[in-house]
Amino acid sequence: MNPDVTTELYPPARLAQVQEATAEAGLGALLLTPGPDLRYVTGYDAIQLERLTCLVVPGEGEPFLVVPRLELAAAQASPAGALGVEMVPWDETDDPYALVARRLPSGLAAVGLADRMWAVMALRFRDAMPGARQVPAGRVMGRLRVRKSPAEVAALREAGAAIDRVHRLVPGLLKAGRTEREVGRDIAEAIVAEGHARVDFVIVGSGPNGASPHHELSDRVIGHGEPVVVDIGGTMPSGYCSDETRNYCVGEPPADYTAYYEVLRRAQQAACEAVRPGVTPEAVDAAARDVIADAGYGEFFIHRTGHGIGLETHEDPYIVAGNTEPLRPGMAFSIEPGIYPGEHGARIEDIVVCTEDGFERMNLIDRALTIVD
Amino acid sequence: MNPDVTTELYPPARLAQVQEATAEAGLGALLLTPGPDLRYVTGYDAIQLERLTCLVVPGEGEPFLVVPRLELAAAQASPAGALGVEMVPWDETDDPYALVARRLPSGLAAVGLADRMWAVMALRFRDAMPGARQVPAGRVMGRLRVRKSPAEVAALREAGAAIDRVHRLVPGLLKAGRTEREVGRDIAEAIVAEGHARVDFVIVGSGPNGASPHHELSDRVIGHGEPVVVDIGGTMPSGYCSDETRNYCVGEPPADYTAYYEVLRRAQQAACEAVRPGVTPEAVDAAARDVIADAGYGEFFIHRTGHGIGLETHEDPYIVAGNTEPLRPGMAFSIEPGIYPGEHGARIEDIVVCTEDGFERMNLIDRALTIVD
Repeated sequence: MNPDVTTELYPPARLAQVQEATAEAGLGALLLTPGPDLRYVTGYDAIQLERLTCLVVPGEGEPFLVVPRLELAAAQASPAGALGVEMVPWDETDDPYALVARRLPSGLAAVGLADRMWAVMALRFRDAMPGARQVPAGRVMGRLRVRKSPAEVAALREAGAAIDRVHRLVPGLLKAGRTEREVGRDIAEAIVAEGHARVDFVIVGSGPNGASPHHELSDRVIGHGEPVVVDIGGTMPSGYCSDETRNYCVGEPPADYTAYYEVLRRAQQAACEAVRPGVTPEAVDAAARDVIADAGYGEFFIHRTGHGIGLETHEDPYIVAGNTEPLRPGMAFSIEPGIYPGEHGARIEDIVVCTEDGFERMNLIDRALTIVD
Repeated sequence: MNPDVTTELYPPARLAQVQEATAEAGLGALLLTPGPDLRYVTGYDAIQLERLTCLVVPGEGEPFLVVPRLELAAAQASPAGALGVEMVPWDETDDPYALVARRLPSGLAAVGLADRMWAVMALRFRDAMPGARQVPAGRVMGRLRVRKSPAEVAALREAGAAIDRVHRLVPGLLKAGRTEREVGRDIAEAIVAEGHARVDFVIVGSGPNGASPHHELSDRVIGHGEPVVVDIGGTMPSGYCSDETRNYCVGEPPADYTAYYEVLRRAQQAACEAVRPGVTPEAVDAAARDVIADAGYGEFFIHRTGHGIGLETHEDPYIVAGNTEPLRPGMAFSIEPGIYPGEHGARIEDIVVCTEDGFERMNLIDRALTIVD
């Protein structure tokens, strides 16, 4: 990405906001290892490996980035280098956990750990700072990350358009006699060719495999007249993710499938239309669930209606019973009800963003079943 | 993979070995979330997402696998399904951490967490089992995983051959005027085309970028007469990883580069030849370091000599000063000294396995500088 885009998506002012939120949450420091939290705050897309890289955001005082010396040049060349954060390199035989503990005030009551920090690192920090109670950094980061800026929504729109382009290619790849894995490999190539930096997942669920929501790929040969669930996503160079599910059938589908597919379409539409500021995620979930239950398929909808999306494919807010935190403008999430009777199954998924007065879809291609010859 | 290969690589008897080691280590249970530990024990290549999947291996009693209900079918279809481990599904509004705590004996003194478990999950387990001290599961798993079985060595050999094939294609991709990113994208495609299930990393470091060991890809245009470090790896369908570095130059390299490249070759060879049972990793590190230091380049070799490899690209044993745990047959690791003066740099990397009386290289292509026209 060019530097302007980077600065718009990852504004340098975020670091001060995060620091303020850390102090407000009563945390002595946030410890952010490579992953979505670090990238959100600095734009630095560091790889998580066994050597500690950690942005330390103290409630008070100057933030600093602890970095293995052999990654110092890469860190300086990253957007983090432009933030003016002090970089503290460590050598192969140093103890970087002790280094972090020494530089922080002693006796901190609590520190926040990046939600995705590896446990082995969390336990090293626990031992290096035995008095500090560890809590998830998500308590601080979640509130900031859950509402997307206009630049973030634009990045999600771009991701949505890219995965739409991949779905447009799927009818040309699906043929009776090919295996799910063969089709999946072609889709993975298309995900990258259409602009993603990375493939995150490729689900091609044919026939009964379509009734297993997290089935991925198998050597099952796709047969004539079989519905196929295609649920795919990747991460764009911006860091933002795509995730879209459409349904295909090689030849004419079974009659019972056609019946519940129509119910599913109505359910997905109803849930999308329920989205606006002030509505709770559990009400959006219920909007989909009620349509499905009223049609008699309630027992076959075995998962929540959706998950937030941004720098992670799955993040807050979760569209699930029990989540009563009202939607607010800028929240981005999937709406993906499914019906899985067993012989086959279907799921329709779009990413939507809550706007000032309703919702905007990031995925625009038709949600009807696509019949492939 | 076909079931026979799976059973050889992931023998069903492992679960009992791990349970025995857990009890011996004085741990009440191991908690293994998706990642290399879970795959090692069960063969199940589950994806790490926010919903808890966790193999619970108690020191005494029956192991069980906690799994989100919507992933139950996928778990049963995985190699874990053939182990006869009880699967305990949980629903979207259940608390799976409380579920694990309830099923374990109360008052456990200590539990081991998968090293790569997300911190947010580790903290949920801490709160659900407040009396149990958390330690890294690596204390138990590391000892088992560090010595590869013949089937695992065969899988590493296969991975080594696959990445060798990719390196053979690199001279056809490198041209003055192309950017690192363009070359890197072609290499990523080749990594998959040559048999990997996943690209793990692609480093193309041209000119000064070759002097930053963890540089990845940039839009820098590769110039004539510039050395290029190509360090690439992926994960095979078996789960085992490849990692190999070779050096290329578009046209004739600078004279100072040629001089230190020859030193580097000798250093890499010396470290490989130092490998045999009973030798310490730090002695292997010193074997490379001494050659480089004696030639006057010591200050430019800024990282350890290598890392273990298997189901993770980086795992025990680390070939680094201070590691005095003697090598034993079946240990697999990289030997990858580097010299990084600044204007350019070089690193030569092979994966080697410690044998009964020496070493075996998994990467067989020539280690000389490859001049590309």
